[in-house]
Amino acid sequence: MSDDRPDPTNPEIYTHWADDTIRFGDMDATGHVNNVAFARYVEGGRVPFMRSGIVPAYDERQRFVVGNLSIRFRAQAFYPGTVQIGTGVAALGRTSITLGHGVFSDGVCLATAESVVVYIVDNRAAPLGDEMRARLEAVLMR
Amino acid sequence: MSDDRPDPTNPEIYTHWADDTIRFGDMDATGHVNNVAFARYVEGGRVPFMRSGIVPAYDERQRFVVGNLSIRFRAQAFYPGTVQIGTGVAALGRTSITLGHGVFSDGVCLATAESVVVYIVDNRAAPLGDEMRARLEAVLMR
Amino acid sequence: MSDDRPDPTNPEIYTHWADDTIRFGDMDATGHVNNVAFARYVEGGRVPFMRSGIVPAYDERQRFVVGNLSIRFRAQAFYPGTVQIGTGVAALGRTSITLGHGVFSDGVCLATAESVVVYIVDNRAAPLGDEMRARLEAVLMR
Amino acid sequence: MSDDRPDPTNPEIYTHWADDTIRFGDMDATGHVNNVAFARYVEGGRVPFMRSGIVPAYDERQRFVVGNLSIRFRAQAFYPGTVQIGTGVAALGRTSITLGHGVFSDGVCLATAESVVVYIVDNRAAPLGDEMRARLEAVLMR
Repeated sequence: MSDDRPDPTNPEIYTHWADDTIRFGDMDATGHVNNVAFARYVEGGRVPFMRSGIVPAYDERQRFVVGNLSIRFRAQAFYPGTVQIGTGVAALGRTSITLGHGVFSDGVCLATAESVVVYIVDNRAAPLGDEMRARLEAVLMR
Repeated sequence: MSDDRPDPTNPEIYTHWADDTIRFGDMDATGHVNNVAFARYVEGGRVPFMRSGIVPAYDERQRFVVGNLSIRFRAQAFYPGTVQIGTGVAALGRTSITLGHGVFSDGVCLATAESVVVYIVDNRAAPLGDEMRARLEAVLMR
Repeated sequence: MSDDRPDPTNPEIYTHWADDTIRFGDMDATGHVNNVAFARYVEGGRVPFMRSGIVPAYDERQRFVVGNLSIRFRAQAFYPGTVQIGTGVAALGRTSITLGHGVFSDGVCLATAESVVVYIVDNRAAPLGDEMRARLEAVLMR
Repeated sequence: MSDDRPDPTNPEIYTHWADDTIRFGDMDATGHVNNVAFARYVEGGRVPFMRSGIVPAYDERQRFVVGNLSIRFRAQAFYPGTVQIGTGVAALGRTSITLGHGVFSDGVCLATAESVVVYIVDNRAAPLGDEMRARLEAVLMR
């Protein structure tokens, strides 16, 4: 993460929010929420962002695929509880969007993450169009 | 389960078998495999059975949906390990098939289950056709 | 389910309620919420009931284990959305409690379920004590 | 990932191997294995590595926690099938170990990943001891 990115633990940087409910089954045999459940929470932020109208909808020719996912675990979580997942545009590549995510509970940042979603047209990575890029730049997190 | 059904803990009654790997994340905070993971193992037996050619394939008009699932938990399971899921036809209804399942590990029966799958044509429960019924009766567990 | 049990699709019968968030990953390749996710939702009703003080807390000597789980699937569910899980005491056995559950979304009953939880003391099924039984009878669903 | 690290798509670099079974429920509504399932497969490589005797066992005072997880998705996967997860030591920090992972199926590299596991003693990150460091250096992937 380069220095000019905003602090991902600051909830104010995120432009889109989603909620999830911590499940008993999200905890593992060590008694805290398993790291894989966090990947699920992050997906709970990414999917609504991708369906929010900022990027074209999935159709027969075009779609987005997750190319990379990285998560930094910052605090333990426990059932019961809820999480709030903030999502925003962290960076733009030629054919991809890097989304930033923060997973919070009761105001505490439990994890931060980045997902790189790649724009696919006719089964190949394709440049983000000018219009899409303009919409994404307008909401770039600062 | 009526008296004329064969003992579901006897692996010899099952006609179809599938394997699954117990995952660390299948265990919950109590330190044993969570009951929901068993529903997943049972699905791991049901899906290959439904795709084995005994019933028509899912298409635009016809499909099968799970109408009921019941599981009896008989022994605890732990990671690491593998499970073997036996599946067979336990009973036939007018519009449904009752599948019987046994989940085994190292020869121990961990759980038995029944899934009722309902035949749907044009979004409504429909009678199993004669040919399908004959194929299913031929493999009815005894 | 015997005739003298109340209608499980009627939300008014349930004494305890919990919420869960439908996750994108709860849907399977057929595009609707997978039946195993319903087992998870039911657990989301059972665990808080078991921790509500009606039964003794899990300790070194005593605990409850799920002996049976049965689910009747009544309507499809889709992401995004939330579910409300109603739970109550459906019946009492000598050493077990049968919980009834209803999973609802937007007022629609998606599924009903029963979980049989067995009281274990020193690793053996044990009779529910008089005090516990009295507390459970007081909230029996009618 | 710095230039002096070996190619993570080359299965020959990994020192530890585990198997997992692709589940029907690992696929999502897009019809391929969901990215969160890959986080689960990676865990299926990490946990046996951590229990292999190279590092001290989890006890009351000391344990390892996952501090970071990053996954690069390289190919789609589908049910049914199996995956083989290769794991090895990619790098050593003062208080952490970076594990490298490759997820393969039928010889195809589906994903590569890194997990950073942090050594915790008395609830604080602690330096890897000399003996542990020596054992880890001996198996460093090259």
